Amino acid sequence: MASVVGEEVSNKQVIFKDYFTGFPKESDMYVTTSTIKLKVPEGSNAVLLKNLYLSCDPYMRILMQRVVPNGLFNYTPGSPLIGYGVAKVLDCGHPDFKVGDLVWGPNTRWEEYKVIMETESLKKIKHSNVSFSYYTGLLGMPGMTAYAGFHEFCSLKKGEYVFVSAASGAIGQLVGQFAKLCGCYVVGSAGSKEKVDLLKHKFGFDDAFNYNEEHDLDAALKRYFPEGIDIYFDNVGGKTLDAVLLNMRTHGRVAVCGMISQYNLDQPKGIKNMMHIMFKRIHVKGFSFHDYRHLYPKFLDTLLHYIKERKIVYEEDIAEGLESGPAALVGLFKGRNIGKQVVVVARE
Amino acid sequence: MASVVGEEVSNKQVIFKDYFTGFPKESDMYVTTSTIKLKVPEGSNAVLLKNLYLSCDPYMRILMQRVVPNGLFNYTPGSPLIGYGVAKVLDCGHPDFKVGDLVWGPNTRWEEYKVIMETESLKKIKHSNVSFSYYTGLLGMPGMTAYAGFHEFCSLKKGEYVFVSAASGAIGQLVGQFAKLCGCYVVGSAGSKEKVDLLKHKFGFDDAFNYNEEHDLDAALKRYFPEGIDIYFDNVGGKTLDAVLLNMRTHGRVAVCGMISQYNLDQPKGIKNMMHIMFKRIHVKGFSFHDYRHLYPKFLDTLLHYIKERKIVYEEDIAEGLESGPAALVGLFKGRNIGKQVVVVARE
Repeated sequence: MASVVGEEVSNKQVIFKDYFTGFPKESDMYVTTSTIKLKVPEGSNAVLLKNLYLSCDPYMRILMQRVVPNGLFNYTPGSPLIGYGVAKVLDCGHPDFKVGDLVWGPNTRWEEYKVIMETESLKKIKHSNVSFSYYTGLLGMPGMTAYAGFHEFCSLKKGEYVFVSAASGAIGQLVGQFAKLCGCYVVGSAGSKEKVDLLKHKFGFDDAFNYNEEHDLDAALKRYFPEGIDIYFDNVGGKTLDAVLLNMRTHGRVAVCGMISQYNLDQPKGIKNMMHIMFKRIHVKGFSFHDYRHLYPKFLDTLLHYIKERKIVYEEDIAEGLESGPAALVGLFKGRNIGKQVVVVARE
Repeated sequence: MASVVGEEVSNKQVIFKDYFTGFPKESDMYVTTSTIKLKVPEGSNAVLLKNLYLSCDPYMRILMQRVVPNGLFNYTPGSPLIGYGVAKVLDCGHPDFKVGDLVWGPNTRWEEYKVIMETESLKKIKHSNVSFSYYTGLLGMPGMTAYAGFHEFCSLKKGEYVFVSAASGAIGQLVGQFAKLCGCYVVGSAGSKEKVDLLKHKFGFDDAFNYNEEHDLDAALKRYFPEGIDIYFDNVGGKTLDAVLLNMRTHGRVAVCGMISQYNLDQPKGIKNMMHIMFKRIHVKGFSFHDYRHLYPKFLDTLLHYIKERKIVYEEDIAEGLESGPAALVGLFKGRNIGKQVVVVARE
């Protein structure tokens, strides 16, 4: 049903209830409906957005804590969740946008419609030959994170040994494919047989294993990397990181992208093998998309080319409807998603 | 008493007894005396060395374990310890050396005399206007480690906030002085009031504290670095590193040079605050002198200039006589040494 500018319509929202500890539950959010007038204030620079796709990302869990690290802003209890998303401009007072534009950005609220005053973070989508949902994953923050972490930090060489954890996730699946394009040997870990099959048969990893079936991660890594690991792309932290440090090669690089295994713990797990950083002169770097935003145009060109040439494929896990958002987000931390978790609010 | 080439003389040695766990004790070594003929084998390329100064370095503890990380070679029970040292050539079959040369290198055995067949690691000392013992510290491996770690990895900028642990040690005292020369704000930690005074009044640190008097290291760091830490030069690891991670600034650098607090533990302490590496995009790098050997000539020129200009001073803790070696080495792990721990075997 087309949205008619000027109408007052119902506006479904996913509301963050309150700060909590431990694993997120669906009941930490609720779905409600308010109303909104589909019009930007007369004479303002605002943009009225209709949300199409919402991104479920692990960092969102951190924003559900009362205390967050410097530089982050936690969610406001009683207000909608905020995350990356793709939207369509329905009405517009801003000279840089026009009605019908598709945009993506990090301040997408989990609701159907929203009038936005701060438009700096909105990026226009200029390519219509790929799924717009890709701007929550492959062509958005996760893709750029994989690309920047891998190309800017890892400075990998052909033939190097690369390990990726959470390898079928939004970022991991790309890291593995980038590594293969560079001629590396790539092994990924994931949490189910279905995901392991995806890694080996869809994404072209050289090998993959189900970490739930390995009671000794150190032994597993020694089996998959008898020569050791040159590059570890860390999406999980915790015991996997600890086992990896034992198996790194001299001058290895650890790209710390995420530590999803730790986000729901009151006390993070201690990493015991730090001395290997010294013994093997390992380089560990935390990184974020934000530090590499200037590379986005080059990244986008490269990725669009890869997609066209079928050099990169991408797996999405699509949840239908805003009301499916809480379950989809909670599912990230249970490993329920197969590929990038997206919530479809509307398709046009 | 001058040594006479050709004579058979007694040769005092410090012998490593056997692999152990826990803190080193003097009884893990013993002093014995053998004999040696002061002559290189006829027609050989060998060099006969008279040892002058021996270096006590924390890494030596790691070589006293049965199992050591790849790339390291542990000590042989029943044989002398091996470490960095300064020696004089007494007899010589090698074209690159002559009698009377002073040399330094990593394969110095803890004994009075030694015939060396492998001379590749020996470096000739060409400057006589500084104490030769400095080649175990300021002008040797620790100096080069401080220099390389600081200048090559930390890429520091004027005004940055620098924290150094074990700051009065062989490496720490130099890191602090290098940082001051670069216009940084530098705070050091050490284990006694005497050391703290040294940091503040001899080495010119902006501030310093005794970690034994701080039951909450996080709170101490927040007091000394209300704006956070840009660069942490880690010589100790463990709980200090964990507290530092909480206090790092965005894009901070952690140079992992040593983790002396962990070398005597059966189970290293787990580091809990790893997520801050990700939150703050921290750069952590293990490094070693070995990766920067090509910089040694430049380093030596720079340091000799600094010494001449009194821009760098250096504190040594001199133990007299080879038989004082075990106590001196053990003392490193008790924090008994004030400055670089050197053992004098002979002064000429």
